[in-house]
Amino acid sequence: MKTRSNFGKHYLNDLRDCDPEIIKSVDPTREIILRAAKECGATILDDHFHQFQPIGMSGVVLIAESHISIHTWPESGFAAADIFTCGEMKPQVAIDIMREGFRAKKASMSMKVIVRGQLDGD
Amino acid sequence: MKTRSNFGKHYLNDLRDCDPEIIKSVDPTREIILRAAKECGATILDDHFHQFQPIGMSGVVLIAESHISIHTWPESGFAAADIFTCGEMKPQVAIDIMREGFRAKKASMSMKVIVRGQLDGD
Repeated sequence: MKTRSNFGKHYLNDLRDCDPEIIKSVDPTREIILRAAKECGATILDDHFHQFQPIGMSGVVLIAESHISIHTWPESGFAAADIFTCGEMKPQVAIDIMREGFRAKKASMSMKVIVRGQLDGD
Repeated sequence: MKTRSNFGKHYLNDLRDCDPEIIKSVDPTREIILRAAKECGATILDDHFHQFQPIGMSGVVLIAESHISIHTWPESGFAAADIFTCGEMKPQVAIDIMREGFRAKKASMSMKVIVRGQLDGD
């Protein structure tokens, strides 16, 4: 019997040199985030996005597996795109879709994977 | 002139030995999370919570400073409570309110602080 070793994994993606025209507003960003959620196998519960003035946006998709979040700083070409998953899905698929959708430069990306609630004995 | 050294800080809190009666459902958990958001000085944009069956919940509060999220595993007394802030607020106030509200045992808490989008020269 396989025992649980943790409660989930949290992928923190700092995406740089994104296209400001894309990440400045909700509509194109939401489309990319929802496509990423669907194609990585997440079960979407609901989604909520907020437009900042004059530019920039935040959003979150609650998924059965936990959440996907996005915050953008278009004036700096920066986006923080996170995936918290406790279930069966393919985070790398979502990360690739977000990176390509925002046109982030691969060389300037960074990702941290944080194991949540790691249990003793791992 | 103070220059930006990063885009925000992300506080990842793994809370163990929480009271299952509190974290099993949306109503008490939402009250605690919203109180934490208000008292730490965040500007709440909107909030969304989801009840899992038979027990457990997820929720997110979009704030002007980024977001606060919560995911609970009441069967294990575990809660993952995060604060992503890029503005002026007091994350420790929110963390203390969540910890006390969920009755997490202090000795079994862990917190990671991840600097988001750290710029060169820090």
